[in-house]
Amino acid sequence: MSIVDPISQIFLRLERRNQPMHIGGLQLFSVPENAPADYVHQLVDRARAQNAVQPPFDKRLKYRFGQPFWIEDQDFDMEYHVRHLALPEPGAIRDLLALVSMLHGALLDRARPLWEVYFIEGVTDNRFAVYTKFHHSMMDGISAMRVLRRFLSIDPGTEHFRVPWQLPPRPSSRSHAWSAGLTMLQSSYRQAAALPAAARSLYDAWHDAHHDPDFTGPAQAPACILNRPVSGSRRFAAQGYSMTRIRDAADAYGTTVNDVVLAMCASALRRYLIDLDALPRAPLIAMLPVSLHDDDDAAGNRIALIYANLATDIDDPVERLGAIKRSVDYWKRRYKRMSSEQIMAVVAAMSAPAGLNLLSGLVPSRQSFNVVISNVPGPDDTLYFGDAEMLGMYPMSIVLDGQALNISLVSYRDTLEFGLIACRRSLPSMQNLLKYLDDALDELEHAAGHVPHD
Amino acid sequence: MSIVDPISQIFLRLERRNQPMHIGGLQLFSVPENAPADYVHQLVDRARAQNAVQPPFDKRLKYRFGQPFWIEDQDFDMEYHVRHLALPEPGAIRDLLALVSMLHGALLDRARPLWEVYFIEGVTDNRFAVYTKFHHSMMDGISAMRVLRRFLSIDPGTEHFRVPWQLPPRPSSRSHAWSAGLTMLQSSYRQAAALPAAARSLYDAWHDAHHDPDFTGPAQAPACILNRPVSGSRRFAAQGYSMTRIRDAADAYGTTVNDVVLAMCASALRRYLIDLDALPRAPLIAMLPVSLHDDDDAAGNRIALIYANLATDIDDPVERLGAIKRSVDYWKRRYKRMSSEQIMAVVAAMSAPAGLNLLSGLVPSRQSFNVVISNVPGPDDTLYFGDAEMLGMYPMSIVLDGQALNISLVSYRDTLEFGLIACRRSLPSMQNLLKYLDDALDELEHAAGHVPHD
Repeated sequence: MSIVDPISQIFLRLERRNQPMHIGGLQLFSVPENAPADYVHQLVDRARAQNAVQPPFDKRLKYRFGQPFWIEDQDFDMEYHVRHLALPEPGAIRDLLALVSMLHGALLDRARPLWEVYFIEGVTDNRFAVYTKFHHSMMDGISAMRVLRRFLSIDPGTEHFRVPWQLPPRPSSRSHAWSAGLTMLQSSYRQAAALPAAARSLYDAWHDAHHDPDFTGPAQAPACILNRPVSGSRRFAAQGYSMTRIRDAADAYGTTVNDVVLAMCASALRRYLIDLDALPRAPLIAMLPVSLHDDDDAAGNRIALIYANLATDIDDPVERLGAIKRSVDYWKRRYKRMSSEQIMAVVAAMSAPAGLNLLSGLVPSRQSFNVVISNVPGPDDTLYFGDAEMLGMYPMSIVLDGQALNISLVSYRDTLEFGLIACRRSLPSMQNLLKYLDDALDELEHAAGHVPHD
Repeated sequence: MSIVDPISQIFLRLERRNQPMHIGGLQLFSVPENAPADYVHQLVDRARAQNAVQPPFDKRLKYRFGQPFWIEDQDFDMEYHVRHLALPEPGAIRDLLALVSMLHGALLDRARPLWEVYFIEGVTDNRFAVYTKFHHSMMDGISAMRVLRRFLSIDPGTEHFRVPWQLPPRPSSRSHAWSAGLTMLQSSYRQAAALPAAARSLYDAWHDAHHDPDFTGPAQAPACILNRPVSGSRRFAAQGYSMTRIRDAADAYGTTVNDVVLAMCASALRRYLIDLDALPRAPLIAMLPVSLHDDDDAAGNRIALIYANLATDIDDPVERLGAIKRSVDYWKRRYKRMSSEQIMAVVAAMSAPAGLNLLSGLVPSRQSFNVVISNVPGPDDTLYFGDAEMLGMYPMSIVLDGQALNISLVSYRDTLEFGLIACRRSLPSMQNLLKYLDDALDELEHAAGHVPHD
């Protein structure tokens, strides 16, 4: 029995029917050639047979005197955690997305370990999918993505068959910016020592707010339909975009890949909001959690926040890209001069209002940011689940009151996979954003004089 | 805009993640011969095209000053309410039950009209299923069963295609005993006038509790695993039993069909609890809501409660049937001498503790009854949804803290369809009850010297 850590308690406390606090991922696989007709059925049976369940997958909540603890689930029910579903004929991706949208909108059962895995057969072109959900109190987004990768292998073969709950987890690394911020607020000595420098940095930021045109900080975000209270129903949209194309565009404009990604998101959001006659006059602000270290292990809990100006008030796509780049570069310059402790202190101070807004469950009266865009680097190599090749993996994040859209990205091979999760009611026809993302990349390519690759 | 009536407000207030307050039904249909491969897909398209949504299907909740109102949903989303799913190959009934168990365990989205319909294709032997869920605040069990029947036709043919949300509902008739009891407690003149007689009747009941061996009343129920707090996961089990066989057994023993049904439930529960080493020493008590009128319309809201002794302490099945019959007959004799107002007053007084226990969300310290068994008469004729023959319909009711199992029955043609819904965690392997129900009927037939029909 162990006490639930304070950050995880926050995720439990924030959860409501309209605001489930689980994260997830959708993975698409190819059924191997010459596989038997009941291939997925066999996979499910094999997965369910792996019943030596490792922590934290074997832990359920138990409340004592109002305090939550993790205890071992004595009645672990593998059939409950590992489900087998199918798509109606002909198994269109559209139907797959509708199904996982529905699954992602349903609350986990708190009487059991807070995870579920769905094997979904019958995806068109001889494919199957795996949708996994974890409660955020059990695992953060980066750990979840890591778990979803660790059970895969670079070698195909049934002898490499592994399931996530077989693997002992690595030390948890809290990734979400505001949760890191809140952790910070609980204060550690090292961080306290960094506070004077942080205060100086915050003063600089405050100063810049009046003098530096590239400065974008919290509480500059306009009111927008993205920031309404949310319903309990979700829409998930996912698509991969060629990393080569994005990298070429970045080279053409002298920006980073990330700048181009933000420009794509900005153009798509601008057009989507114009469709709905809901584009704010002031530019949208995106909040980007960025890792301060390149190695993906223990240091992964050092993250910083960038408040990016999406420049959605600018009509020209190339000008827009430039404005975005300048606002991101501002934070990069600033962070470069600081130690990671100082950065964390700044992040904590800046995200406190956002964190407290989330905590209180109120829609902020002053909007800190309009949308979260997070980008997690993924594997370059082709990965396999047993002998099934993984064709794509798409992150599925959390929608909150006041944050009706979340854009998460993960790279895989030469593809940058976008996973967009939204409140289905606040953001009608959200799936149009996928096309607009595509158009945005085309637009940048054309303006640079490139011939699009396809 | 109309205010949500007090009983419906109770259903809304009782709802929690582990205690969804919706009811449902599972219907099984035969795909017509020579139907196209995308037959179910066409049905779904056709159903979604019926977008002239009638009340109450077009109403969603809106809270003003803490008070819930029904308002028209201006963003009605037909794709959200009408879903299209499929079973994995080969479409075993076991997989169908697993799927609807999962669906029945998920909370409805309160930002939308509180109903969902799922068309499930790929059931083995060329069948498909329809699972429908309604929030209990929108519709009671009898109304829901009526809605599920009204869109069906006795004539097959695509021209008879109708969907539930096309039909204006008949006046609501609250069926659940304790809700009727609570309505009563809100007092009407007629009922107040009946109170002296009701008081007399309660006095008699109290007197009988000490003197009449056949008397079974509330608060005599033993502690049992059926009456634990529940989790948020469900297990649904369903099966049809031959009405001819049940009727023959009833004739052989000089009992009613209902007595035999109770004896089947009693034997099955006894054996299930013995398996788990959890049979209470004292007999289980079932609560049966019974209609006071035969015609199924406006008068349908007049219902009485019977507390039946299931005689699970008796080993011999025939003796057990006799004891059950005597306890049911006691209430029938008593109710025969009373007007329906007097009966309602007694019911209200008797169910108040049960109702208040439910309201407060506490597991009763004194158990009123162990299990609810409700039996709704259904259609004798073969019914069709468009040109698809309905093969069976199974009611799915509510599981509550303290009531981890609900047994609902509905008759269709020569079959009595049992729908058992349970907390999956409190009642492991609950599906064994289906086999034990079967065995119980066999046993009664053998004891009567019948040769079983099959």
